[in-house]
Amino acid sequence: MSQAPILALHGGAGTIPAASLTPDLTNAYHDGIRTALAAGHAVLKSGGTALDAVTRTVVALEENPLFNAGHGAVYTTDETHEMDAAVMDGATGRAGAIAGICGPRNPVLAARAVMEKSAHVFLAGEGAMRFCREVGLEFMPSAWFGTERRLDALRQEMARRAANSADTRSDADRHGTVGAVALDVHGNLAAATSTGGITAKTPGRVGDSPVIGAGTWADNATCAISATGQGELFIRVAAAHEIAARMRWGGQSLAEAADDVANNVLAPIGGSGGLIALDAKGNLSLPFNCDGMYRGFIAPDGIAHSAIHREDWRIQAST
Amino acid sequence: MSQAPILALHGGAGTIPAASLTPDLTNAYHDGIRTALAAGHAVLKSGGTALDAVTRTVVALEENPLFNAGHGAVYTTDETHEMDAAVMDGATGRAGAIAGICGPRNPVLAARAVMEKSAHVFLAGEGAMRFCREVGLEFMPSAWFGTERRLDALRQEMARRAANSADTRSDADRHGTVGAVALDVHGNLAAATSTGGITAKTPGRVGDSPVIGAGTWADNATCAISATGQGELFIRVAAAHEIAARMRWGGQSLAEAADDVANNVLAPIGGSGGLIALDAKGNLSLPFNCDGMYRGFIAPDGIAHSAIHREDWRIQAST
Repeated sequence: MSQAPILALHGGAGTIPAASLTPDLTNAYHDGIRTALAAGHAVLKSGGTALDAVTRTVVALEENPLFNAGHGAVYTTDETHEMDAAVMDGATGRAGAIAGICGPRNPVLAARAVMEKSAHVFLAGEGAMRFCREVGLEFMPSAWFGTERRLDALRQEMARRAANSADTRSDADRHGTVGAVALDVHGNLAAATSTGGITAKTPGRVGDSPVIGAGTWADNATCAISATGQGELFIRVAAAHEIAARMRWGGQSLAEAADDVANNVLAPIGGSGGLIALDAKGNLSLPFNCDGMYRGFIAPDGIAHSAIHREDWRIQAST
Repeated sequence: MSQAPILALHGGAGTIPAASLTPDLTNAYHDGIRTALAAGHAVLKSGGTALDAVTRTVVALEENPLFNAGHGAVYTTDETHEMDAAVMDGATGRAGAIAGICGPRNPVLAARAVMEKSAHVFLAGEGAMRFCREVGLEFMPSAWFGTERRLDALRQEMARRAANSADTRSDADRHGTVGAVALDVHGNLAAATSTGGITAKTPGRVGDSPVIGAGTWADNATCAISATGQGELFIRVAAAHEIAARMRWGGQSLAEAADDVANNVLAPIGGSGGLIALDAKGNLSLPFNCDGMYRGFIAPDGIAHSAIHREDWRIQAST
């Protein structure tokens, strides 16, 4: 094993304000981050691929209702869920993405199936749903994806719009996404992203998560990226590919490129959010331009780090 | 007027093989290219914006059944049409994209409406259709989009698949797209792309056309791009944004970047196709890595140029 594996994840930028976060909820988020890190890191420790590790990590986040993806996805204005996801393999440049689905238990597995079992890279809507059924993905009833907390958020937002009152929602109420990046013992990178989108979004809205080059990117020659935030702006600047291109063509380091795109490209145009970035040398950068970003990583020392706002990392030795 | 306007278009890479193209059909393609060029160039000559010019050019191509977009769109395996389109404004970085629609007469106007009348950049499927109805776009019955030629192509392909025989289709039978790039008198760039996708595509398949950074891009600081070809590969390399990034961060000229991406990035991985590229200095590049690409341009001299394969340009003074 030439390369010590590295795994990082995010559970969405735009966190609950520190003042509103109870100790119990804080602990629950840290536990959720660590559980997902442990799931993905187990794949890497046993010599598995970065692609399998990011998939497994994102599945764990999709299963946790605290995060806006899979179980716990936010609602559209129709009180439905429309989920998007993508995966990309830095070793081969292969990718799979899916948008506007509700049914497959784990949207990231649907994106992975698009990559591995279709002739296409990107499927959306009804046709995407048919593909998911044909390849035999596990389905859940739509009620499984919903939670009281997300339904309350929708109803508050719909009431606010009906009353025409000012939008005082925190970033946490607006958006949320989960994602992972990994470097495996073979030296390969991969990235995966999954989201329920924005609370009270227009049905049909596609954010940056399934747009290869915007919310998701992986290329061994540069970096693996998963983004989270105001997706429209991430699409408009091709955020993930912009970081890769600055490294490849502009000679920027991973940290320079990732920080500059988050803080000096996205922030000035209203692109609230953040991203996780990892290169093939093991450099890791997790910038965000808003209050917080649920995030964590396990570096070669095997220690799980987790954080929500700009506090110190909570650390826990990997088992 | 500080800048002499420039307009270029493509009507799809993967042309009918020269041997199968009758003189009448050849003339019809040249006429279609010139008609669309004239429509867009009239906007530019009167001081209109690049955004309006590319939109008007693509509308003209969508109205012409020879090209695979709007009227003349290819069929999915369900004998339906699913159209995708995008626009991007190089002056502001705003963009609009739409995928999987059948109803709005001009998909490029739907993409433009997403940019100008929604809070989003990208809408797909049923939700996108609802948006199109809400903003009052002109709708046509689905039969309007179809043509005998495209239906024959679908039926031949379905018969071939049923018989399990080898795929001997030309690139023209596989894909097709239309697009335009323009530089206006104000010095601003814009790009637009519209497509029916691939004959006998899986319903739900999204190609590169509506993926900002893959099939469509515009930024005054670098270039405007509209691509055409095997969209999956264009998505995987973020083809359009890659050209822009090489110019911005790698110091490559428009021609170097566009040629290299078409011939040395896309071609080796099976990314058959081409693209049209224009920068704010008025440099124009129209590379393709297959037999032909329906294409044309009007440079500052006002002369309309059109071509299909690698023959000399047909020229006609602009009226």
